[in-house]
Formats: sequence, structure tokens, C-alpha cells
Amino acid sequence: MGRIYNFSAGPATLPVEVLEQARDEMLDWNGRGSSVMEVSHRSKAFIKVAEQAESDLRELMAVPDDYAVLFLQGGATQQFALIPMNLSTPEQGVDYLVTGQWSKKATAEARTLRRVHIVADGASLNFADVPSRSSWDLSPDAAYVHYCPNETIGGLEFHDVPDVGAVPLVADMSSTILSRPVDVRKFGLIYAGAQKNIGPAGLVVMIVRRDLLERVQTTVPNILRFASHAKEGSMLNTPPTFSWYVAGLVFAWLKRQGGLGRIGEVNKRKAEKLYRAIDESGYYRNPVAPAYRSWMNVPFTLPDAGLDAAFLAEAAEAGLAELKGHRSVGGMRASIYNAMPEAGVDSLISFMADFARRHG
Amino acid sequence: MGRIYNFSAGPATLPVEVLEQARDEMLDWNGRGSSVMEVSHRSKAFIKVAEQAESDLRELMAVPDDYAVLFLQGGATQQFALIPMNLSTPEQGVDYLVTGQWSKKATAEARTLRRVHIVADGASLNFADVPSRSSWDLSPDAAYVHYCPNETIGGLEFHDVPDVGAVPLVADMSSTILSRPVDVRKFGLIYAGAQKNIGPAGLVVMIVRRDLLERVQTTVPNILRFASHAKEGSMLNTPPTFSWYVAGLVFAWLKRQGGLGRIGEVNKRKAEKLYRAIDESGYYRNPVAPAYRSWMNVPFTLPDAGLDAAFLAEAAEAGLAELKGHRSVGGMRASIYNAMPEAGVDSLISFMADFARRHG
Repeated sequence: MGRIYNFSAGPATLPVEVLEQARDEMLDWNGRGSSVMEVSHRSKAFIKVAEQAESDLRELMAVPDDYAVLFLQGGATQQFALIPMNLSTPEQGVDYLVTGQWSKKATAEARTLRRVHIVADGASLNFADVPSRSSWDLSPDAAYVHYCPNETIGGLEFHDVPDVGAVPLVADMSSTILSRPVDVRKFGLIYAGAQKNIGPAGLVVMIVRRDLLERVQTTVPNILRFASHAKEGSMLNTPPTFSWYVAGLVFAWLKRQGGLGRIGEVNKRKAEKLYRAIDESGYYRNPVAPAYRSWMNVPFTLPDAGLDAAFLAEAAEAGLAELKGHRSVGGMRASIYNAMPEAGVDSLISFMADFARRHG
Repeated sequence: MGRIYNFSAGPATLPVEVLEQARDEMLDWNGRGSSVMEVSHRSKAFIKVAEQAESDLRELMAVPDDYAVLFLQGGATQQFALIPMNLSTPEQGVDYLVTGQWSKKATAEARTLRRVHIVADGASLNFADVPSRSSWDLSPDAAYVHYCPNETIGGLEFHDVPDVGAVPLVADMSSTILSRPVDVRKFGLIYAGAQKNIGPAGLVVMIVRRDLLERVQTTVPNILRFASHAKEGSMLNTPPTFSWYVAGLVFAWLKRQGGLGRIGEVNKRKAEKLYRAIDESGYYRNPVAPAYRSWMNVPFTLPDAGLDAAFLAEAAEAGLAELKGHRSVGGMRASIYNAMPEAGVDSLISFMADFARRHG
């Protein structure tokens, strides 16, 4: 069949041009008579791919030189454990801000390793809003403050970077990285699973201020140390080469789109028109406080959950796929990452209006 | 250009049919209008892929039901740290057999975590032979014995499974898994990075006796526990879905080849003819004791290292690529995994004879 609009929260849709290039090069990459999957990560040809990807990412995000860029494995979830192991000692306290399911999971994992202090917890607000900043209880001596700028499940996003003073700020940007410009200098460490805005699942991108790499203790095994990966240019062991290559194709695609300033404008417009359609429908509902509504993940409910199955079936018929909400939340969720064309959002809005008319 | 014969040690060549299918399905997999890379790992469609891959692997290797099969990340190198963390307590000793660069690396990483006892060390034999088994010093109370059945760099392989008594045997099978039948019952845990005989880099396959999963202590973070991955069917977090899918295509291809009995015969024949050509040439030389010569990785030297560059250049001209030996060993290395057709080995042998004639 033809390509559909795929609203999956992740692994998520990729730019068609990227998939086409990966397809065309699958058996004969760079005129080498083999796939990029089949060449040594230490070959000159692959190292060129790896370095170009890093350099394009640095350009896109304006990453300062005193930050290392790492290409790692294990998903963002593995970093939930490795971040406390790398950035703090067992004696130090660490600060966590809880604003949804992902920051909650990160907090739970950190607790197996460290004394965790909760800065604020949005659970009592049903994670539809962030506790007011005046109520946040930041520890001046914390090793770092961890938060999740975009909660993929709840659809809650920070539209600014919170001020946490001199303590290094650590951000799980899995579902917001590359969706708009950010000031990397405001962060100690940024990490992101690739499977939303970067490429295939199984790759993690990390941007970390180099001085923080020196904190790791010798009791941490070498392969789990960010410093060791940084020292070896993310080739301490065989990296996920195909995913790194696809990530590079995505970075090149983003540059062709005009970079993060331009893509941020498109993302803002896509999100605003979808929220407007929801709010003005008198039919659909999004529960998130307007100041924290995500540009990337837009959950919404129908007036009657009994209509969900019909909505999903008719949407699929119309070429609009993967709209089912997360199992912990229910309802619908439209994930509209960079690779979702504005036309896909327009189609969804038309379909939603039509469905409401017919079932209202 | 046309496909070449690619002797890379890893990431290594894949079956052409597998690459063709991945290419053909890149934009529209299963008639879904999206790539397999773009669908949720929790979707029915992907779970079917994941389960089929596991079931085919179980069939190929005759994995007993009391063994879990896991699809993990981080490479075999990450398991060098996670195995001691999961299979032993800080108080227990662990046994390591050192027969080459990879078992040496595994040993070094285990030392950061546990009291390591060396069963035997082939360093004094230049890793070209294994110390005689009567000299092995096994600890009856070790938590496990670790070894590497095939040393990719030295080209040294065990052609039987060593008897270590009742202590669980742990094997890094990265470069030998699926190359012949093995009796899984003789092992406590088998693990392998995918990038040689399974699929793209970034995936690890692990086969572990279920009772061993219960050893892990609560001080180990959840994401680093094999037991947690087993409990969630390797979907504790987003797995490397595309690599898992390609691995499944490789398993299906292996079944079409007639399974491991048949592929083992072919591998034995490929290796024997290449070693015979080396030994009988009076020109090339392989340093490994005949009883331990690897079926998968065949290092060889020319009479004069000054000829290496000419050999590599002329081989590449003849469509025989990636023959350069590992940087730590020098000379040449032909990795002839499952996906290297016998015709590729035949071509290499002809080329080698011709080169020796012209430069001898």
C-alpha cells in the first residue's frame, strides 16, 4: 500500500527521504558492494559517517566544544541507572522532578542507587500540570537535578528551561530533542532515545559537559562509564552502526529543512492547530494545562470511550494510524514529531471534525 | 557496483536474500504503509516478528524450555560487566579462562566487580594454543566459569565444550553462535553480539538457564537485571526493533539452509579448504594449533609484511574485501561466517594462489 500517516509515539515515523536512501543503499552503500550494516565500525568509510553525524548534530543544536556528544545503546531507560552511577557518588543526594510516567520511572531507578530527593511531584495534579515553581524544593548540594522536558505519555512539555541555579541540570529529551532550538549551555547532560526524533530504536544520543565526565568512580565498570565512551569516540565497543547511519541521514534531512529554528516553527504550528481543533470541537478534550501542552504528543479523549474502537478503525481506513493512547492513560494520542508532515496533521484534523459530526 | 565478498570480522556480511527483503520492505512492511522501524514494539505486528524470531532461534539451537532467550542491547562488551553483576554476589569468586583478546577483556571488566580467579591463561602460548586441560585450575565454589569459545582476533576456537563440572559455564559466543549445532544444556549462559552471525550491530542474543536469573541482588538497577528483561519478554524498554527484525530474517534464512547441522558441514568444509590452501602454499602461514583453528576467523600472514599492502589492494580489485588483520595482530584475517558463501572462500583461495605465484 502507499505510505500512511503514522502517529506512533515511538518507534515513530521517519522522513520518507531517509527511508528511501536507506533502501536504495541497502545492498550497495557508497559504491562498496556491501551494506553500511556490513562494514567495520573502525573502517574509514564508517568513521566518516559517524563523524559527519556528530558534526551535523553539533551544528543543528549549536553544541559548545566543552560538551561531548556520545552515541550509546540501551535506550533512555538504561541511562536512568547510568546517570546516577556516572554523575554522583553513593554518598551524594540527587534531585528529581516528577512530572509524568517517564520522570517517575527515572526516579524509581535512581532510588535503587542513590538517596533521591523529590523537587516536586505532579501526581496530585494527575500529571496534567506542573507544580508551581515557587513550591519546588531544590537542594543546593544535589549532585544534579533530573527532569523530563517532554512527557511522551501525558503529553506535558516544558516550553522553557527551568532555572535550577548552579546544580547541573540533566534532561531526558527523548521525545523533544531536535524539535526546536535549545540552549545547550543551560544543561549539564541531555540524553535521548533515538526512536522518536532521531532514528531507529537502539541508539541513544547524549550531550554532556565534559567536566561532569570526571565524576565517575573507579568502582563503575568501564563499559558503563560515559567517560570511557567519550574517550573512544563512542567506539569503546561496536556501536549500533546502522542506527547511527540512519540518525546521520535524519540530521542531514533536518539541515535541509532549514535547521531547528525552522522545524520549531512548523512544530509549533502543527501543535497549535491540533489543540485549537480539539478545544473548539466541543467534542474532543485534552486535559493538559495550556502552558504545558506538548508540541510532540497530543493526547485527547472522545466524549464516550465506547467510541474509541470506531474512531481507531475509521482513522486507519483514512490512512491515519497508531492513534491509540498509551495503555496507562487510554483515549487517543497523536504523536507529531519532526517527521510527521503538516499535511498529516491537517488530515487528522479533518478526519476528527468529520468523525465528530457523524458520531456527535 | 555488484556485491563483493566481504571478509569483515564484524559488523560482517549478511545473506543477500536478507538484505533484499529488508530493502523491499523498507517503506511498506507487511502492507502497513510504514517501515518495521516505525511501528511500536508493543504493536501486535511487531510482537509477532519478535516471537517468531525467538521461536526460530529456539528451534535452530534446540533451546530447552528451562532456558530464557533474551534480545538485549549494549554489545557483548556490556555483558562483560552485567554477567558478574547478575550471576554472582560481591562475596563470591568467579572463574575466567583466558584464551585471547576477548576473554582477556571480559576478565578485566569482571575484575572491577569481583574476585576473579584465572583457570588458565594462554598468553604464554601467544594465544595460538589453549593450555592443556590437565593444567586448568577450576574452583569448585566459583559462581560460574567464563570462556570465549571462539576468539575472533586470534582465530582460536574450541571444537568441543570443556567439562567444568557442576559450576555453570558462561560462553561469549559472539563469533561462533549458529555456526554449528551446540548442546545448550552444557551451558548456564550463552551470549553473543549480533554483528557476526545474527544481524546488525546493537543487538545481543542471550540464552540463560532460568534458575540462574534468580541470583541477582536487589542492589543491581532494574534495567541491568537479566531477570527483569526475561520477565518482560525483552520489552522492559524499547528494544532495537529493526535489528531484531533483521535477526529474524537471518534465522528464517538459516532454516531454509537446512539448519545448523547443514550449515556446520558447510562451515567445516569452507574452513578446512582455506587452512589446507594456507598450509600447502609454503607461502602463507596460520599460527594456531590445528586442534584449535577457528572455522569462523582465519588469520594468516604473508612471508613478508611488506607485501601486505599489495595483497590487500589486489584482493580488493578482485572483489575480496576487508581482509586486513586486526590492528593488534597484523597480517590478514578472513572471517568466513555463515553468510560468506563457499564460492567466496573458493575465490579467496584462487586469488591467494595466484598472488603467491606472482609475488613468491
